[in-house]
Amino acid sequence: MAVVESASLLSLAQEEVAAGIDQLFDSLIAVPADPRGRLYEAMRYAAIGGGKRLRPLLLRAAGDLFHVDRAISLRVGAAVEAMHVYSLIHDDLPCMDDDDLRRGKPTVHKAFDDATAVLAGDSLHALAFEWLCDPATHADPFVRAELCCELARAAGPAGMAGGQMMDLAAETSDFDLPTVTRLQQLKTGALIAFSVEAGAILARIPAEGRRPLRGYARDIGLAFQIADDIMDVEGDEALAGKALHKDEAAGKATFVTLMGLERAREQARLLVDQAIAHLGGFGEEAALLRAIARYVVERDH
Amino acid sequence: MAVVESASLLSLAQEEVAAGIDQLFDSLIAVPADPRGRLYEAMRYAAIGGGKRLRPLLLRAAGDLFHVDRAISLRVGAAVEAMHVYSLIHDDLPCMDDDDLRRGKPTVHKAFDDATAVLAGDSLHALAFEWLCDPATHADPFVRAELCCELARAAGPAGMAGGQMMDLAAETSDFDLPTVTRLQQLKTGALIAFSVEAGAILARIPAEGRRPLRGYARDIGLAFQIADDIMDVEGDEALAGKALHKDEAAGKATFVTLMGLERAREQARLLVDQAIAHLGGFGEEAALLRAIARYVVERDH
Repeated sequence: MAVVESASLLSLAQEEVAAGIDQLFDSLIAVPADPRGRLYEAMRYAAIGGGKRLRPLLLRAAGDLFHVDRAISLRVGAAVEAMHVYSLIHDDLPCMDDDDLRRGKPTVHKAFDDATAVLAGDSLHALAFEWLCDPATHADPFVRAELCCELARAAGPAGMAGGQMMDLAAETSDFDLPTVTRLQQLKTGALIAFSVEAGAILARIPAEGRRPLRGYARDIGLAFQIADDIMDVEGDEALAGKALHKDEAAGKATFVTLMGLERAREQARLLVDQAIAHLGGFGEEAALLRAIARYVVERDH
Repeated sequence: MAVVESASLLSLAQEEVAAGIDQLFDSLIAVPADPRGRLYEAMRYAAIGGGKRLRPLLLRAAGDLFHVDRAISLRVGAAVEAMHVYSLIHDDLPCMDDDDLRRGKPTVHKAFDDATAVLAGDSLHALAFEWLCDPATHADPFVRAELCCELARAAGPAGMAGGQMMDLAAETSDFDLPTVTRLQQLKTGALIAFSVEAGAILARIPAEGRRPLRGYARDIGLAFQIADDIMDVEGDEALAGKALHKDEAAGKATFVTLMGLERAREQARLLVDQAIAHLGGFGEEAALLRAIARYVVERDH
């Protein structure tokens, strides 16, 4: 497929997924007329109308491989995105990374307050599971239970939360490359891997058949993070919509500090090629997954 | 059954459940030999060896009604207790209720730090779902998915997290009795109701047949909270293991400020009688649930 076609395939899917996710959040997070209103406002503020929606996009692309109903992969995508947004809200808290800007606007604890931010994160965390387990998500309870189990693993101490803990320790430790790799596999890799694998779970593909997807997800997860580290050094804060150069200032080990800018760039490209190679058994139906792999290292924010 | 027998039935079950929960937490939260160690230590510090274990006890008692395997109700009890402990960790944070003492020892953010406390709470939140959805919990995926869905509802913005948001608003608002009742039904009632209903879900009792349990749970949930409000006025901090008289100092509307001490006490007793009346269709197998109903208003901490 020509590069132009692949780019328009990607931007079309991205627009569709972004609009679908906003619509779902809008209907699933309705503000009640009682003293909890502020909590729901904070959730909507954080969740609606922002971000690249990479995880729901991956879910749709992986679901497409197996002809999963797109309304279903979108719904599961909303659950993953809610989980991602909760993690951003908590990571931005003053006691964590202390960030004032996210997706080009004040972070939740700045726009509301710290307590509301903690509870908005906690609420989105619970809602992700509520949406996944709802019979409206999938008729087969085995699929629903497996999605919940895998999402819980990806989000918990053996996944995202554990990675964030390592990230906090990174500021005062001398992490080597394997440790930084492990950190990122937990912090961002686990949820990206879930997003890809969920497409196969929805189609009831047995674990055996998911191996190429796992390889793909592992590679783009790392490539994504290396690109993030490069952006932290070279990026434009206005485009990124968040504070950059923070790792440098904190003296934190990253892929860039450990490998140098050139080798990091090369490694990211290599991982993308490797990710695409994992999809060798698929044809045209994997075009979106391939386009996403290229996108994760080429995006400018 | 004589009162003495009922009391020993309760204390025996309480001891057994408390020991079982500690044992499960000990094996399910094993400290890894990597930079996440501190996170797991914080979870263990908060979760093991403390508290009344009221929710797992209710789960065991409700499961007993339907001859649910006690190892299974204990496992589901561990999930509910993990959810409860996460909520305590986050509620105690400086930006929330700012408490230094919990279960007679320094709160997690005091013993560790704020960031670790946020992540330990987040981790226990995710683990609760991971344990519930694990095939080891129940062979029927429908049961696992339903447990997850109901727990998510009880924990999220339409349950515990929403109740905590109302509780924060209570300090600056003039809540009336119906609003305080609603607040408590969300903040503590939802998880108590889940604990009771989960016993019926595990036995695949249809929604219809769960009605008496729902009535029981609603009544003891409120009775429990009224007793808590009374304790906040009259209790002994050493026995309670946490700071008391906080509502009074904050000028917050509670059952006691709204009803007066005597009427509150009477209301709690009335609710207990009503809760026990809901169990009229059951025989000896409901003895533990009846004993728990009496206990929630008689406990001295």
